[in-house]
Amino acid sequence: MTQRVRVQNFCLSSDGFGAGEGQSHDRPFGHADPGALAGWAGATAHWPNRTEPGGTYGLDDYVTRDFTNNIGAEIMGRNKFGPQRGAWENLDWQGWWGDEPPFHTPVFVLTHHLRPSFTLGETTFHFLDASPEEALAQAFAAAGGKDVRIGGGVQTVREFLDADLVDQMHLAVAPVELGRGERLWASPDELTDRFHLERIPSPSGVVHHFFWRR
Amino acid sequence: MTQRVRVQNFCLSSDGFGAGEGQSHDRPFGHADPGALAGWAGATAHWPNRTEPGGTYGLDDYVTRDFTNNIGAEIMGRNKFGPQRGAWENLDWQGWWGDEPPFHTPVFVLTHHLRPSFTLGETTFHFLDASPEEALAQAFAAAGGKDVRIGGGVQTVREFLDADLVDQMHLAVAPVELGRGERLWASPDELTDRFHLERIPSPSGVVHHFFWRR
Repeated sequence: MTQRVRVQNFCLSSDGFGAGEGQSHDRPFGHADPGALAGWAGATAHWPNRTEPGGTYGLDDYVTRDFTNNIGAEIMGRNKFGPQRGAWENLDWQGWWGDEPPFHTPVFVLTHHLRPSFTLGETTFHFLDASPEEALAQAFAAAGGKDVRIGGGVQTVREFLDADLVDQMHLAVAPVELGRGERLWASPDELTDRFHLERIPSPSGVVHHFFWRR
Repeated sequence: MTQRVRVQNFCLSSDGFGAGEGQSHDRPFGHADPGALAGWAGATAHWPNRTEPGGTYGLDDYVTRDFTNNIGAEIMGRNKFGPQRGAWENLDWQGWWGDEPPFHTPVFVLTHHLRPSFTLGETTFHFLDASPEEALAQAFAAAGGKDVRIGGGVQTVREFLDADLVDQMHLAVAPVELGRGERLWASPDELTDRFHLERIPSPSGVVHHFFWRR
């Protein structure tokens, strides 16, 4: 099977922002309300962070339940991994996700500030100072023949798109405007020269955008 | 994890028929054109019977790629297994699906005419003369903790619905009328007292109907 590079369940505002301005430990999405961007996912039965029973099994759940389907590794930017910028003051920070992060695969964190790998639950975090191509080669090798997820944030997705390394993308566009912050696009039509695009409105209010290579 | 009972990728006409009149070896869907009912699935990248590369990765592909996701067994009716009716004349018939059927799990065929189990590729077919409840107990036990798919045809889905044993259903309703044949419903609204229902139109022309228990 061909290994593919996928973006999954990436949440955007209607004006194309994946996070607001002023990101910090207390406001990981800056001035954006994370519930307004990602609430659709939290309502589904297969949301990885779901702790109580219940949840929906409709369209939105198909995309959350696909999150781990044939994924063997993730690549993320350092700004997704944590709120720190620049050199590490110490190594206490181990990500936002507690003792059992939802990845269950190797995760490669792109950063100019290297630190040792560590394991939490079924997830091992590695730190790379590498180009998208170099990082992808390592992630493919670690993925056991499966696909590689580009986990974000916006800048990392943008870098992999600019390097033309992305095969498929799912983005959920929420009915909220942010005005400023980390912007992926002015319009999804910027990508339709290279990708097929399906826009599928969900009863939850988000519009799922499915892209795949032409 | 709770084991669930799921109907997946079940194709219907707009007037609620899953197969036409006059089913036979040469016309397994009777007077219905199988391409008109199921062509949406054949166009996707993850259609189990796909032999050539290519195919779409949009909404329709999410439902075909979910076909094997957490499924540990299937229950089907004898009329899905083959065109014969009544007593077996011989045991030459081993299903429609060739040497590697797309199930890759135990499959329980409901019939009053028992015959020995046999294995093709990763699929083992068992034959049961049993109620829906009894068949489901055997399928759950064989499913290794995973879910059980009710594979059809119409009469079998109807029996499991009537016994209130179905947890989730996905049906793809095609823009074609059949007028006669094997009918699942006059309207999907017959089920909304017991199930949530989302209707999601696909660019392929089918309307996906996602049901889950209230």
